Amino acid sequence: MSSSLHQLFIFIIIISFTTTTITRVNSIPVPFPETLKQSLIHNPKPTKPSSPSLPVTTHYFPQILDHFTFTPNSSKLFSQKYLLNSTFWPSSSSPIFVYTGNEGDIEWFTSNTGFMFDIAPTFNALLVFIEHRFYGESLPFGNDSYTSTDTLGYLTSTQALADYAALIKSLKHNLSAQAAPVVVFGGSYGGMLAAWFRLKYPHIAMGALASSAPILQFDKIVPWSSFYDAVSQDYKDESMNCFEVIKESWDVLMQVAATKNGLLQLSKTFKSCKKLQSVYSVRDWLWTAFVYTAMVDYPTPANFMASLPAYPVKQMCRIIDGFPKGTNKLDKVFAAASVYYNYSGDVKCFDFEGSSDPHGLNGWGWQACTEMVMPMNCSNESMFPPSSYDYKQTEASCYFKYGVQPRPHWITTEYGGNRIEKVLKRFGSNIIFSNGLRDPWSRGGVLKNISPSIIALVTEKGAHHVDFRTATKDDPKWLIEQRENEIKIIKQWIDQYYKDL
Amino acid sequence: MSSSLHQLFIFIIIISFTTTTITRVNSIPVPFPETLKQSLIHNPKPTKPSSPSLPVTTHYFPQILDHFTFTPNSSKLFSQKYLLNSTFWPSSSSPIFVYTGNEGDIEWFTSNTGFMFDIAPTFNALLVFIEHRFYGESLPFGNDSYTSTDTLGYLTSTQALADYAALIKSLKHNLSAQAAPVVVFGGSYGGMLAAWFRLKYPHIAMGALASSAPILQFDKIVPWSSFYDAVSQDYKDESMNCFEVIKESWDVLMQVAATKNGLLQLSKTFKSCKKLQSVYSVRDWLWTAFVYTAMVDYPTPANFMASLPAYPVKQMCRIIDGFPKGTNKLDKVFAAASVYYNYSGDVKCFDFEGSSDPHGLNGWGWQACTEMVMPMNCSNESMFPPSSYDYKQTEASCYFKYGVQPRPHWITTEYGGNRIEKVLKRFGSNIIFSNGLRDPWSRGGVLKNISPSIIALVTEKGAHHVDFRTATKDDPKWLIEQRENEIKIIKQWIDQYYKDL
Repeated sequence: MSSSLHQLFIFIIIISFTTTTITRVNSIPVPFPETLKQSLIHNPKPTKPSSPSLPVTTHYFPQILDHFTFTPNSSKLFSQKYLLNSTFWPSSSSPIFVYTGNEGDIEWFTSNTGFMFDIAPTFNALLVFIEHRFYGESLPFGNDSYTSTDTLGYLTSTQALADYAALIKSLKHNLSAQAAPVVVFGGSYGGMLAAWFRLKYPHIAMGALASSAPILQFDKIVPWSSFYDAVSQDYKDESMNCFEVIKESWDVLMQVAATKNGLLQLSKTFKSCKKLQSVYSVRDWLWTAFVYTAMVDYPTPANFMASLPAYPVKQMCRIIDGFPKGTNKLDKVFAAASVYYNYSGDVKCFDFEGSSDPHGLNGWGWQACTEMVMPMNCSNESMFPPSSYDYKQTEASCYFKYGVQPRPHWITTEYGGNRIEKVLKRFGSNIIFSNGLRDPWSRGGVLKNISPSIIALVTEKGAHHVDFRTATKDDPKWLIEQRENEIKIIKQWIDQYYKDL
Repeated sequence: MSSSLHQLFIFIIIISFTTTTITRVNSIPVPFPETLKQSLIHNPKPTKPSSPSLPVTTHYFPQILDHFTFTPNSSKLFSQKYLLNSTFWPSSSSPIFVYTGNEGDIEWFTSNTGFMFDIAPTFNALLVFIEHRFYGESLPFGNDSYTSTDTLGYLTSTQALADYAALIKSLKHNLSAQAAPVVVFGGSYGGMLAAWFRLKYPHIAMGALASSAPILQFDKIVPWSSFYDAVSQDYKDESMNCFEVIKESWDVLMQVAATKNGLLQLSKTFKSCKKLQSVYSVRDWLWTAFVYTAMVDYPTPANFMASLPAYPVKQMCRIIDGFPKGTNKLDKVFAAASVYYNYSGDVKCFDFEGSSDPHGLNGWGWQACTEMVMPMNCSNESMFPPSSYDYKQTEASCYFKYGVQPRPHWITTEYGGNRIEKVLKRFGSNIIFSNGLRDPWSRGGVLKNISPSIIALVTEKGAHHVDFRTATKDDPKWLIEQRENEIKIIKQWIDQYYKDL
């Protein structure tokens, strides 16, 4: 599977949840979760790093299948992959920085977390990047890992955290590095894991930097509409006209589709390679472009989810606003979405309805159908068609797809989240929650300091874990400062750690 | 199974581990874990509370079998028992005190935790006593729960903690008591669970009182000889002669057994109902008496593990010291052990070698063979025959008995313990570790304050969770003060909690 696509899963599936619901509200069933796979395929240029030659060595750890039972299968071992860079690690008591891998192969996260390489020399840190079970090469049942609930059942966040604990403990033992302070790093779902790891395994990690970690996007902790409201706000911030064009385009799309030859007309407007079979293909295509562009609204050109210019939301809105009065709204949104899908201009037509899944793996789909139930809807104030969230629909489609019943309240039972500012005010320490407010996931993040050592670093202009990206000469001041703050705080933790020794 | 006997398991099995090893060192195999069952049977009067009429109501919660996977079996529900007393609970925001049940039926722990009933009026607290999965009535597979690793595999501490989290969360929801502060209480293994619960589920419990919780009795955190050294110290503190008589008696026992008609002679000395088949029956019988009496060396008469006078170790030593010079050492230790087995004097002969397990359940045996691997040996300085600890022996006997392989480093991976004073110095809050130094388990407990709110309350004269027993008019000052300290600290937590609201 193309590495870059893994990273998309967390977002895509969640969006898929929402779009599924919306579709249901519109009484037109869309198979779940095919929608999102189509979304993947929309992207003509998967952005796998061209050179996989990362400055790391590859290792495998014999990991236990089930940490929490002693049933006959539980003690089965599988090979968990991890990457090491010890270039800057002078002694076994120097710090160890661990990336808690998320939903994809570990090379992808490693190559998109240049920040750790950038700061390793300053800290004399050993770098460790651990692959999450059931992703990349870390497949507990090999090619059968995704065949049934008998195997997939072991893909859970709690098992992943215990994997990290066991691996780090063993690694420290093997390196005679028991005295070394361990700091965990993670972005997005990996950031959730990093924060939870510090909370659950304080004896293994003495601090965590959780970037863009929406740990509050569960149950009823944040308003269900917050994610799409935030996407909408990004566009509204650029121009009210831009926001309104997008908001009104959905109705126009449906109206055109309802006319005779409407789909043929849409096929032309949206440069479909083949005649469109469903208006929802276009809707999802647009939806994906607007949402992901908001997430990766980086201040410099980037190639994270697609090859994009700096501040791509601004680019999209400039295009929309630049059309002459009277231009069809669908032409406007097509042109805007093309920033996301075709910034290079090379693509002549788009494949909207390819529905195969050439990669065969969809771990996040499973995770979203078991633990990671993040309710979302679209408010009347958003730029998306209003929709409600219907858990029953989620439950039914998960059962249909995987034969599994979600546990929608499990994450808050296991990790908390409700009244987090009270709970952690006098419990826990050494966590940075970093968020950029351009990132719609920030609405599910921790945005206020909880205690003197559980800190929220918020940037108004930041996007999805932008702080984890390799520094560039064009980075704006606020981003440089954010990273400096992170370094300063982690330095304090480590200094304190050595003092306490 | 007689309730009182459940409580014995944690101790008995561990002792069995050690005795098994010792036996191996002596090259005489003793079936594992039958030794301990014999120990149970030695006690002629199981001390089940005569009246089970506790001031509680009985309830059942539909609990999920496996919180940490989504395999096909995982979502099976079983009925978990819990007891409630709401007599003193005036409003749904008043405190909830939860006993985190340990290895036995919950009525037993409830009736031996009178402290919670004593303090409930002061705190206006709702009392909840939750039964641990696989004990009492909370059998996930009914009568088949103990038949194989397929079922027993789900008996783990992590699952038990998650059970408590799910149950408490649901209970608070049903009682509209979301705002109520929850404090967890536990003694012995239940105390370990209470402390770990506060560490792992701070969003559910805002404080924990862990009494006699040997959370450091794992891996190499405390010296392996500490437990038996502590038992020995209890006797040495009473009289050096007492200590020496016991220490020398083991050799005498073996010497007699090695003579012609030795076992017959021992049968008479120890008033065995039937002729003894093995000297190890007597050795274990004595061993058990000395160890358990040290644990329950309470300052007032008690009927916890056996019907005993106040300060029973002193009683034993008085008996040993009171014999005329030249009395056979075996007569002395028999008389001392009879304090434990026959304080009433009603028993005319003892059944040393009954080997059936009429109760059919031995949950702690399983737990000791999976997670709860507590290495112990006997030093040359102890009053027991010197022995080494041999993990391989533990592993082999666990495999023989249950077909399971222990994970001897899992507890420290999951819960920590090494360098706990550093790890928790700046992490966590609101835990009291209470220990009495007469209790040999105190050597595996937290005996020093870790932070301003992770407190060790240590009494020189206290025994195994004596603070949890119902107050009596004869309680010594130090015990009254210990309980007052606990109440004061918990009051501070709760006051702070309401202030933070």
